[in-house]
Amino acid sequence: MTLIPSFSLKGRSGKARMGTLLLNHGEVETPVFMPVGTQATVKTVRNSDLIQYGWKIILGNTYHLYLRPGLELLEKAGGLHSFMNWQGNILTDSGGFQLFSLSSLRRITEEGYSFQSHIDGSSHILTPEKVVEAQTVFGSDVMMVLDECLEQPSEESKTRDSVALTLRWAKRARELHGGMGQAMFGIVQGGGFPHLRRQCAEALVDMDFDGYAIGGVAVGEERPMMELAVKSCIDILPADRPRYLMGVGKPEDLIDFVGMGVDMFDCVVPTRNARGACFFVPEGRLNIRNARFRDDFRPVQEDCDCYVCRNHTRAYLRHLFIAREWLAPIYATLHNLRYFAGLMEELRCAIREDRYAETSKDLLGRMGKLGNP
Amino acid sequence: MTLIPSFSLKGRSGKARMGTLLLNHGEVETPVFMPVGTQATVKTVRNSDLIQYGWKIILGNTYHLYLRPGLELLEKAGGLHSFMNWQGNILTDSGGFQLFSLSSLRRITEEGYSFQSHIDGSSHILTPEKVVEAQTVFGSDVMMVLDECLEQPSEESKTRDSVALTLRWAKRARELHGGMGQAMFGIVQGGGFPHLRRQCAEALVDMDFDGYAIGGVAVGEERPMMELAVKSCIDILPADRPRYLMGVGKPEDLIDFVGMGVDMFDCVVPTRNARGACFFVPEGRLNIRNARFRDDFRPVQEDCDCYVCRNHTRAYLRHLFIAREWLAPIYATLHNLRYFAGLMEELRCAIREDRYAETSKDLLGRMGKLGNP
Repeated sequence: MTLIPSFSLKGRSGKARMGTLLLNHGEVETPVFMPVGTQATVKTVRNSDLIQYGWKIILGNTYHLYLRPGLELLEKAGGLHSFMNWQGNILTDSGGFQLFSLSSLRRITEEGYSFQSHIDGSSHILTPEKVVEAQTVFGSDVMMVLDECLEQPSEESKTRDSVALTLRWAKRARELHGGMGQAMFGIVQGGGFPHLRRQCAEALVDMDFDGYAIGGVAVGEERPMMELAVKSCIDILPADRPRYLMGVGKPEDLIDFVGMGVDMFDCVVPTRNARGACFFVPEGRLNIRNARFRDDFRPVQEDCDCYVCRNHTRAYLRHLFIAREWLAPIYATLHNLRYFAGLMEELRCAIREDRYAETSKDLLGRMGKLGNP
Repeated sequence: MTLIPSFSLKGRSGKARMGTLLLNHGEVETPVFMPVGTQATVKTVRNSDLIQYGWKIILGNTYHLYLRPGLELLEKAGGLHSFMNWQGNILTDSGGFQLFSLSSLRRITEEGYSFQSHIDGSSHILTPEKVVEAQTVFGSDVMMVLDECLEQPSEESKTRDSVALTLRWAKRARELHGGMGQAMFGIVQGGGFPHLRRQCAEALVDMDFDGYAIGGVAVGEERPMMELAVKSCIDILPADRPRYLMGVGKPEDLIDFVGMGVDMFDCVVPTRNARGACFFVPEGRLNIRNARFRDDFRPVQEDCDCYVCRNHTRAYLRHLFIAREWLAPIYATLHNLRYFAGLMEELRCAIREDRYAETSKDLLGRMGKLGNP
């Protein structure tokens, strides 16, 4: 019998890895991208759509779910899976990023974060223990420990203190137990300082987490810093645990960072950009509002098998966006989720067949992203 | 071989009728309700949803489609069905109601309506001929003639003049031909004056339309006037042609007016009210935002087979509305369309089995609408 959670590394191509992550709600093939379901829904789409396109894991946001619908209701509902009737896996973040980006009047102490809700101004405190407790109530298949997310760039001394706090918080979280089989991931911080990233990673590895995230990226920093954050610590992370780059990314990022050995990703890009009329295609992106699509009666992507590409034209989709119709973001999201699912499948296949370098070069070339990261 | 369009009356129960309307895109069982697809989409739902719930005919709005995407693009697309990839039937209204309710600076002359677009203020003129031409480009399965829609109440002399103009316009439209097999319906006007309604109906019947609509209702008038509009003219309309009550209605209206011999309806109620958190159920309506649904883990309607009732709870749907999530109106629309489809099926079944009076009484009683129309 295999213990849950468990991660089996099944193959490599260069530094790119493929594997299987076994969680409470089934197996997930890695490298994997997780669509974001902030408030117990991946915006605009139904669970049946996610299943149809092969998604086995989505992300929920602890900060949002803690505030609304709240722990009491989620407990009554029997957890987040039951509340939203999602049979697949759910990873929930720690709230650190939202506390950093959304809440007003937040204050950090040794104990945790004091903050006011962005919804109604009510006062709350989130500690490392409270965040584990919340994710235990959710029944998250993967829970993240509370971390401090710093704005970038930050000074070295400030970053050093922050990493130290993040590590003390990680230790407090690690000493607790979630529910049966719930995985717990630590989060590597350290800003743009490779030695702090390394120190943080080493200390977290000593705490023996089920997986390791690289955090504090995708906060508006330059791309080289994101690469530096990954490269400085990824070789310290144990090969037999999944590695998760938080809040990343765009298709070109997924290709690059899988190539550097990252196994898991989440990002609002396929869903949020969809609401802005952006359709992802192998050649890059189409802004479907563009006048050149006015009488373009081809599908968005000729070889795409999604509902939208099988049924509708660029001209019709443009009309929906111009007319501000509800179906517009729904259809863009559906297509983008299919595109991202297909891209990840393509990357896994390239690793399986040990041709990752060529495949990634081909994919980036087709996107016009070669030499222009 | 049956000519298209054709209408076969198949049964009666009291004054309620059931029949089959054969149109260019297939058969429609009557009495029928038509979901409104104003801008080439029934808001929030996919064509596959409409098909799944058995919808064979939807309504499009000539005024909106004429302005956006416009005739030139719809002609290039090969018509409205092809543009929106809808294989079922489409009835398009004449634009009269939107000219009345939406456009600014409209001016009526013998020729037609001059008006400025509510979208960009551009100047347009819609004549009876232009409205037929537009619906020919659309490829509408049922086209409506241009009519004048008066505010209610209006004076008798004003109404008399308006009916006369509507009849002259109807004659001009009738003398044109749409595309092969396109049905053309006349529209009975006459406000709250039974003798004008009768005169209008008689004159239209002389013009031999494929069906007859009762218009100028659902414009904010009291319910008794709506009944009067129907009762004053319905017996004048030939039994072998479908009768369409425009812009109606709520479930209780559908039950009542089917009982008076109406065959066709359209209304934004299932879709627009859905966006306002209203779920239709046999007992009436649930406003799902209500605090009493906060921890109600039952489906909206226990015996409903729609995707939403099979998969989600009232508590979850309330959360989606409170959190202003995209899925909220989508799910409410899906359920309401299923509910309306089921209601119409129930009414047809009651007519088939000649128990319309009992069934309608039962249904209205369950809704709490008996004696309180």
